[in-house]
Amino acid sequence: MTKPDDSKPEETTPAPPAADVENQRGGGGGGGVSNILQRWRREGFLKRCSLTFRAFGFLFSLLAFLIMATNKHGDWREFDKYEEYRYVLAIAILSTLYTGLQIWRQIHEFYTTKEIISRQNAAIVDFIGDQVVAYLLLSAASAAVPLTNSMRQGADNIFTDSSASAISMEFFAFFSLGLSALISGYKLSNQTYI
Amino acid sequence: MTKPDDSKPEETTPAPPAADVENQRGGGGGGGVSNILQRWRREGFLKRCSLTFRAFGFLFSLLAFLIMATNKHGDWREFDKYEEYRYVLAIAILSTLYTGLQIWRQIHEFYTTKEIISRQNAAIVDFIGDQVVAYLLLSAASAAVPLTNSMRQGADNIFTDSSASAISMEFFAFFSLGLSALISGYKLSNQTYI
Repeated sequence: MTKPDDSKPEETTPAPPAADVENQRGGGGGGGVSNILQRWRREGFLKRCSLTFRAFGFLFSLLAFLIMATNKHGDWREFDKYEEYRYVLAIAILSTLYTGLQIWRQIHEFYTTKEIISRQNAAIVDFIGDQVVAYLLLSAASAAVPLTNSMRQGADNIFTDSSASAISMEFFAFFSLGLSALISGYKLSNQTYI
Repeated sequence: MTKPDDSKPEETTPAPPAADVENQRGGGGGGGVSNILQRWRREGFLKRCSLTFRAFGFLFSLLAFLIMATNKHGDWREFDKYEEYRYVLAIAILSTLYTGLQIWRQIHEFYTTKEIISRQNAAIVDFIGDQVVAYLLLSAASAAVPLTNSMRQGADNIFTDSSASAISMEFFAFFSLGLSALISGYKLSNQTYI
């Protein structure tokens, strides 16, 4: 998805109209147009960044979900006997759905140029969503760490290893969504004045 | 990526009027001053808000620290026998120190009008500090919940009650610092253009 992102601004930024506008304005207000251009470039860059972070978030959440959901090895080694692991699974599913929907929306808006949510609302939804999902991922991963630690002191088998890797994936997903929340927070607070 | 394409003509056309307004302002000067005044008022309001949230963060962290540190009732009912509770205590101390220092700095700057850290750096330090401490508080509180839950299923005594209240205080501190991080993130992203 980064390829089209990359190529499109390159096609549009050296657009003659922008230069024409600058010429029409003469020496008076060249700064305004170049500021706007700079803004566009920055916005494009931020969009690519947030898409990338969300894609990573999606990947890691999906991995956490799959690893945890298949973590059933009979006897006490079943993830659904422990509420910590059920929490990890629930948040992994939520995060997978959230990031998947966000990526779908971003790609859909890219190809159809139609906005599913208005820009103002999108900024708020993006920021709250990213931040809350990041908090939830961190909370679920943190909650499951002590249980896994104490299990591994007793026995180190495929069950504990899978749990540990699902938790790690959830931590990575947290980092990705935390970074995405940074970007959407930046977008949100800069959008209110425009 | 389609948005820049779409908005390009829209944003360029109202650009000259904006410049005109700016020129008019240069003559009259009324709009600029009222904008600046508005900004000041907003900044003052944000400062009070962030001070309030940090004060609550300090209060709740201190409470979590005190409740957990005094949570020693002999036998298995000692907080330092459980790494989850030690984590809660450590993060409570860290958060108390951080919020205490921030409050001291804000009050000091208010009364002496001298800046301890330069404004640019302060915005970054504030935001990273608030956000990281909020994440740590949430992580510590989440990690300690399952242990406390499973203990309370067996026995409900002063030890488990104190643990539960320390964890609750840590959650409240997390909410306060999360809100404070919102404000400092807003400040940070609006400061880079001024």
